[in-house]
Amino acid sequence: MKVIFLGTASAYPTPDRGVSCIGLKNEDWVWLFDCGEGSQTQVMKSEIKPGKISKIFITHLHGDHCYGLPGLMCTISQNNQRSEPVEIYGPEGLRKFLRTSLSLSQSQLGFDYIVHELKMIPEQYVFETSGAILTWDVNLSCDDVLHPNERPGLLIECDRDKVWELYDDNKIGVKAVWLKHRIPSFAFVIQEKPIAGKLDAAKLKAKGVPPGPLYSKIKAGEKITAPSGEKISPRDVVGPPRPGRKVIICGDTCWSEELLKVGQNADILVHEATLQNSCKDTAIQNGHSTPDMAADIAQRLNVKKLVLTHYSQRYKPINCTDTENQETVQILYDEAASVMGKDRVVAAYDLLSISVPLKSS
Amino acid sequence: MKVIFLGTASAYPTPDRGVSCIGLKNEDWVWLFDCGEGSQTQVMKSEIKPGKISKIFITHLHGDHCYGLPGLMCTISQNNQRSEPVEIYGPEGLRKFLRTSLSLSQSQLGFDYIVHELKMIPEQYVFETSGAILTWDVNLSCDDVLHPNERPGLLIECDRDKVWELYDDNKIGVKAVWLKHRIPSFAFVIQEKPIAGKLDAAKLKAKGVPPGPLYSKIKAGEKITAPSGEKISPRDVVGPPRPGRKVIICGDTCWSEELLKVGQNADILVHEATLQNSCKDTAIQNGHSTPDMAADIAQRLNVKKLVLTHYSQRYKPINCTDTENQETVQILYDEAASVMGKDRVVAAYDLLSISVPLKSS
Repeated sequence: MKVIFLGTASAYPTPDRGVSCIGLKNEDWVWLFDCGEGSQTQVMKSEIKPGKISKIFITHLHGDHCYGLPGLMCTISQNNQRSEPVEIYGPEGLRKFLRTSLSLSQSQLGFDYIVHELKMIPEQYVFETSGAILTWDVNLSCDDVLHPNERPGLLIECDRDKVWELYDDNKIGVKAVWLKHRIPSFAFVIQEKPIAGKLDAAKLKAKGVPPGPLYSKIKAGEKITAPSGEKISPRDVVGPPRPGRKVIICGDTCWSEELLKVGQNADILVHEATLQNSCKDTAIQNGHSTPDMAADIAQRLNVKKLVLTHYSQRYKPINCTDTENQETVQILYDEAASVMGKDRVVAAYDLLSISVPLKSS
Repeated sequence: MKVIFLGTASAYPTPDRGVSCIGLKNEDWVWLFDCGEGSQTQVMKSEIKPGKISKIFITHLHGDHCYGLPGLMCTISQNNQRSEPVEIYGPEGLRKFLRTSLSLSQSQLGFDYIVHELKMIPEQYVFETSGAILTWDVNLSCDDVLHPNERPGLLIECDRDKVWELYDDNKIGVKAVWLKHRIPSFAFVIQEKPIAGKLDAAKLKAKGVPPGPLYSKIKAGEKITAPSGEKISPRDVVGPPRPGRKVIICGDTCWSEELLKVGQNADILVHEATLQNSCKDTAIQNGHSTPDMAADIAQRLNVKKLVLTHYSQRYKPINCTDTENQETVQILYDEAASVMGKDRVVAAYDLLSISVPLKSS
């Protein structure tokens, strides 16, 4: 499993930094988290094949997190006749945005798509500001007929713990919690199920079991009979199951404590750090975080690694050569590392790919 | 006056070619024609200052021509409190696209904007195809309240000659005609008014007229009286007015003959050439043109220069170094040049800037 950063800028893209988009790549599929303008071009520059994208999760509806979605859908459609629909999850209003864009542009896709919306709760609307930041009522529901490639999606409500259960199969599950921001924003918690232990092939060989269907059977937890007649139980030749990996990807936030309920012991926490510690008041006023805020929640979640992203344009890339009087992302990294230690913090940059290795059992 | 190509790709952007966006830059303002995804990043790479963009014209609603508009509006808004609204012109449905995108993302702008829609005519819907390309009915009208920065726009109808008069001041005018494409598409004809002739400063000096208000007065066409008492008439010291420049920028098209009514003798015709001559059937079936089709209309319009753009991804840039078995835009250029002559054809590429010099009187 790999986390691939396709855009790490806040607010707007620059010639050397895309806006929010993160890929989670497994052997068989790619999921995207946010899809700011230009994400499709960043995907083309990366190791991700557009046709492999099967699910897209949108943290919130600010343009730097979703304006690239209609174009990406058209590009995924190039020479691609998927049999399964692309499933998209995000805040109420996402369906209207995508349907309006794809319908008005008369964009037909080579596959179907579904938008599942996360029903908001009153807490998500509460955002105290100095009065400088205002929001207004917008009709979030769709009035038109479905796009020809659209299949009806769900309106997913949260449970009593204010956790949205979005997806679950026998290998992996995705939950969402809300984050405090200027508009409703979510974090996605991706939890892999325990993975079957390793097969001791040498031991099986010694017992005279030839590689083939019996191997699959015993790995799936069934007892087998060796050609010698010996009964072999999985516990004799299969190691203990290994814990699944856990990745958390946050949208914009100035308070992410809801994660404490479901985010413990994650391998990776991707958290924004838009501005440096000395700008904490401004950051919070705009619904954003500083490195100390990101590191604080990472510590309380006991995550292995904190990955910072979503930088203000004032911070140039760390390897920027024209650094005279320039602030770089190094400031943000250093501030988080001073809390967590250098080994536990990564400052993301565009096209960075981070492996999430399987844990030993 | 300069025409600046910000994106020259058809369908979708690539790491080295943006989708449709063209800037027209004058001393005081920049106008954009089309705004595909990533246009704001292309603007940043160019000589155009986003804050100078005062009008945006959208040829048609295919995503590669308009998906970058909401993001561009947000970026123009960065540190920009324009007093005049940004005026946007395009097909019916454009207002809904922009309002939906900016409203759902709760994007507040530092200035107001207006969308003027071009009322379509039945001819624009007629597109005979092999049956492979379909369009469907979409509700083009807005149902929501205006975006807080939106001012009501016009629904502009065409005149009896099927020409849409979009804008006119004492210096420049813009008209639109329809082009045959899979969906309603327009060409914009930008016609500068005649420009006042040159002032013969040496002659005025000899007559004892000091530089200052009298110079402006006589240039504006008024008679003046020299300090000596001599009456001086404009025709004595001001050259004849010089003809204004004329630029035509076309959207996607497989038939642009409506231009014959208002496009004669343009300095520059920007016309698509998506596919080479041997693919003419495919081009027309998809509503596109080949170089011979572009050159044909350019000849009939007696334009000074034909500029080709909107290339299929199969054509790599002319200066592509990895050219083994690669087709490049050179094919398209050569095909148009074989009709018009090499001096009268330009193959646009991203960030190409073409000067349109003032004509002598």
